[in-house]
Amino acid sequence: MSTATTTAKSASTNTSGEALILIDGSWRPATASGTFSATNPATGIAIADKYPISTWSDINAALDASVKAFEELRCLPAERIASFLELFASKIEKSKDKLVAIANEETGLPVVPRLADVELPRTFNQLRAAAAATRTGSWAQATIDTKANIRSVYEGLGPICVFGPNNFPFAFNSLAGGDFAAAIAAGNPVIGKSNTSHPGTTRAFAELAWEAIEELDMPRGMVQLIYRTSHEDGERLVSDIRVGATGYTGSRHAGLKLYEAASKAGKPFYAELSSVNPVVILPGALKERRAKLVEDYVASGLAAVGQMCTSPGIVLLIESPEASSFVEEVSDKYKSAAAGTLLSRSVQQSLHRSVQSLVSFGATLVTGGEVVPGDRCALTNTILKATGKQFLESPEKFQTEAFGNAALMVVCSDLDELHQILRSLEGNLTGSIYSHTGNDDDAAYSVISKTLVSKVGRFLNDKMPTGVAVTAAMNHGGPYPATSHPGFTAVGIPGSMLRFAKLTSYDAVRQDRLPWLLTNKNATGKTWRSIDGQWTVADVAS
Amino acid sequence: MSTATTTAKSASTNTSGEALILIDGSWRPATASGTFSATNPATGIAIADKYPISTWSDINAALDASVKAFEELRCLPAERIASFLELFASKIEKSKDKLVAIANEETGLPVVPRLADVELPRTFNQLRAAAAATRTGSWAQATIDTKANIRSVYEGLGPICVFGPNNFPFAFNSLAGGDFAAAIAAGNPVIGKSNTSHPGTTRAFAELAWEAIEELDMPRGMVQLIYRTSHEDGERLVSDIRVGATGYTGSRHAGLKLYEAASKAGKPFYAELSSVNPVVILPGALKERRAKLVEDYVASGLAAVGQMCTSPGIVLLIESPEASSFVEEVSDKYKSAAAGTLLSRSVQQSLHRSVQSLVSFGATLVTGGEVVPGDRCALTNTILKATGKQFLESPEKFQTEAFGNAALMVVCSDLDELHQILRSLEGNLTGSIYSHTGNDDDAAYSVISKTLVSKVGRFLNDKMPTGVAVTAAMNHGGPYPATSHPGFTAVGIPGSMLRFAKLTSYDAVRQDRLPWLLTNKNATGKTWRSIDGQWTVADVAS
Repeated sequence: MSTATTTAKSASTNTSGEALILIDGSWRPATASGTFSATNPATGIAIADKYPISTWSDINAALDASVKAFEELRCLPAERIASFLELFASKIEKSKDKLVAIANEETGLPVVPRLADVELPRTFNQLRAAAAATRTGSWAQATIDTKANIRSVYEGLGPICVFGPNNFPFAFNSLAGGDFAAAIAAGNPVIGKSNTSHPGTTRAFAELAWEAIEELDMPRGMVQLIYRTSHEDGERLVSDIRVGATGYTGSRHAGLKLYEAASKAGKPFYAELSSVNPVVILPGALKERRAKLVEDYVASGLAAVGQMCTSPGIVLLIESPEASSFVEEVSDKYKSAAAGTLLSRSVQQSLHRSVQSLVSFGATLVTGGEVVPGDRCALTNTILKATGKQFLESPEKFQTEAFGNAALMVVCSDLDELHQILRSLEGNLTGSIYSHTGNDDDAAYSVISKTLVSKVGRFLNDKMPTGVAVTAAMNHGGPYPATSHPGFTAVGIPGSMLRFAKLTSYDAVRQDRLPWLLTNKNATGKTWRSIDGQWTVADVAS
Repeated sequence: MSTATTTAKSASTNTSGEALILIDGSWRPATASGTFSATNPATGIAIADKYPISTWSDINAALDASVKAFEELRCLPAERIASFLELFASKIEKSKDKLVAIANEETGLPVVPRLADVELPRTFNQLRAAAAATRTGSWAQATIDTKANIRSVYEGLGPICVFGPNNFPFAFNSLAGGDFAAAIAAGNPVIGKSNTSHPGTTRAFAELAWEAIEELDMPRGMVQLIYRTSHEDGERLVSDIRVGATGYTGSRHAGLKLYEAASKAGKPFYAELSSVNPVVILPGALKERRAKLVEDYVASGLAAVGQMCTSPGIVLLIESPEASSFVEEVSDKYKSAAAGTLLSRSVQQSLHRSVQSLVSFGATLVTGGEVVPGDRCALTNTILKATGKQFLESPEKFQTEAFGNAALMVVCSDLDELHQILRSLEGNLTGSIYSHTGNDDDAAYSVISKTLVSKVGRFLNDKMPTGVAVTAAMNHGGPYPATSHPGFTAVGIPGSMLRFAKLTSYDAVRQDRLPWLLTNKNATGKTWRSIDGQWTVADVAS
């Protein structure tokens, strides 16, 4: 299927086949400094469609429109925003075949089960969960002090910029994913910047969002799309006075530049940057159920060709015959498994560089490490090995993220060395400890667990970190460099909405002037509010 | 009273009268690059005590000790932390006379009612509220998904640096104030940097904190004190990998430099920087109760010599005979009131500069603007006036914060101009609208209120912004430059604790390994937790 053919019919492409940007409710030609194309990573062939690199005048127009849209959104009942999210979700569900085809072409991710059966349903379900949260309003943590007559609530913050990552073309898409859903549900307009590896997928979402806006007569500028900017304009965007905050998932280097610019201007910047997701396997577990652990590890490590944010990139073991067997058996399975297609040439190149770096630091290449010949973007499944001593000599180097189907096994001489390694770790999204199902590993567990917990956003027992359930109890976050703020999750409704909200106290404000979540009457009859220190769905007693 | 005499007896001063720093439980001489003294602003005379300017080796030692203290704190039950806060609070209450005397000498704030009857009780009450929050654990928003067996909670983040402001020597003190209480209650050690205008007050708190640590055998490094560092070392401190986060209240310029350094390193930095706290008085209110408004405004504007964070620095009026009378009557009262003592020479100089700047931008000096002759730090009570048109021509200039007993009256030609001014405002801690007690101002209110709300952390009706109640519904925060993050409050338990907490999910973690707030059994029987979307104090049904 040719994307060019598909989209030529749409409003979002001009007559010469160049993509239009969505600004203030109009598909218009960009004031571009150049164009770019996506490439099919399974074939290495460039996709026909051309996408513009916007200059500041486009961004400035988007910012102006988003300020206007924010003023309009603030005057709409939550019900309207919820309806928009739901209509958008339905349109996505109905456009499944088209969306899956474009995303498959742009990312190489398999149509089934990944794109069609897992990621797209997750995407429209997230939007529906966000709608439900908006409608009920419990997300906003309304807090009422009846004695002082002071009432606080989280509410919309302002225009939100979203920079989505390459590895989830649907569920983290700038125009439909988790950050988008959270930002809109909290009452904000979104300016989405497409990930440059899947602009067509992003455009397809923007088309559906715009249809929903038109059908429901929502603020025209509430969802806007640009494809790409210069680095300089990106920094100017996230630090602009008109912006409320930014959600960014991507490379550490680019993210930090943007974060620095945003911070100078006092603008919150939520970045998810880098994570090696350490997995500790204690001796008792290895003795008890090695075959199962090998199987679990390989399934997790190779899931999505190792391109999950939570892919287990470092395994920590204590020297023993079982540990050697574990490494050997995992390596054998990695060797015999087919090398999957990576998201892009740049992912392949970066992965290859990381593997070579780890080898240059002293790691042993057990299997893999070779670029798969031909035009497909792929590297043979890779296992590296190092000793705990090596790791501790250069902990920063050995924490190099190898994003893709490569992992590092670190064999420590004893528990103390393993503990030292945990202390040397940077922040991570996840950390796992596997232990004996009885008590054999209890002593070791109690020595190391608190250290690992303090380094991660999600701490797991006897479980691999891939597979991020969308639940209120999820934390997809963690200390730097996993993210830029250890207090927030990027996955899970309602938690992820709080990133894009402003806390406001209403002090002595008259009943008929209060936001609906703060009136004495509980407007829905089921909104959770904290009244004088007690959570309740009741009205304020009058 | 000579502070030198008072403190010479204490452990925190060496034989030559130079203050010692508190590192890892020892009062030790600083590795200093120099010393400084505080000055009594009521007399202009330097106080005898010398305080060291620490170099990196002191800070490095404090950081190492705080990491150790954090590991120890993580293993202590919440009850122990609560007991420490309570014992510290009691010691503060018992040392009232001494603390009040030192603070009065260093800040010029009146002994009664301000220091003895208001600020000190607020300080020990905050510590007690923080203790209660720690003990109950509801602050941590434990969230349990029973189906997925994922459980999240806020918990300690790591060593917290606190830079306290000059204007609240007790309630925001680096070693006893709101940030301190919140950081400790959330399970973190604190490295406090004294405000340089009241080092003696800060040392006195540190002595009491250390006594409480010793008596209760708490981690030695949980509370540490340094007095001052170079700017460079300050930036290095807040961005050090060992730090969890920083709470800063102070000047915008210094705060932004630190914020930038912290952000580059991915370290949360909560800054409270600057706020002019606009007060809008609508025509109906002015017609209805001008005399009362004049009285309220003067009381609030001159409270603490205008040195409250929430002091109403800009009043917005619509041209009318009543508006002219309001300005005149306020000015008359400002003129006839005695000029209070400012916190320091530098506050006086900075206030004088701000007033002169506003005049140079075109504001009219209605009364005041003169340095009070003599050694006392004081400026005559000052009222400036400008038109809405002038303001809109240079909104940034007219928002210059004049910290102290000076305010700007902006007389707009009509409601639309007033609305334009609100749109041009930067973020503020507070914003107030006074309106007719009946319906006379309803139309005007509905035009402007949402715009003002979007710019402020706390929005008030018919009420002056000074006086910040310590309640769960308080937001002492707001968009930049009021603070560096619009989602957090610096006042109010439990809200302020969340700034210094890390969100952690426990995924499939066994019951006996879970934190006490996440076990099936509700450990206190009264801890609020969200279980499958319902807030409850019940156990998880098994």
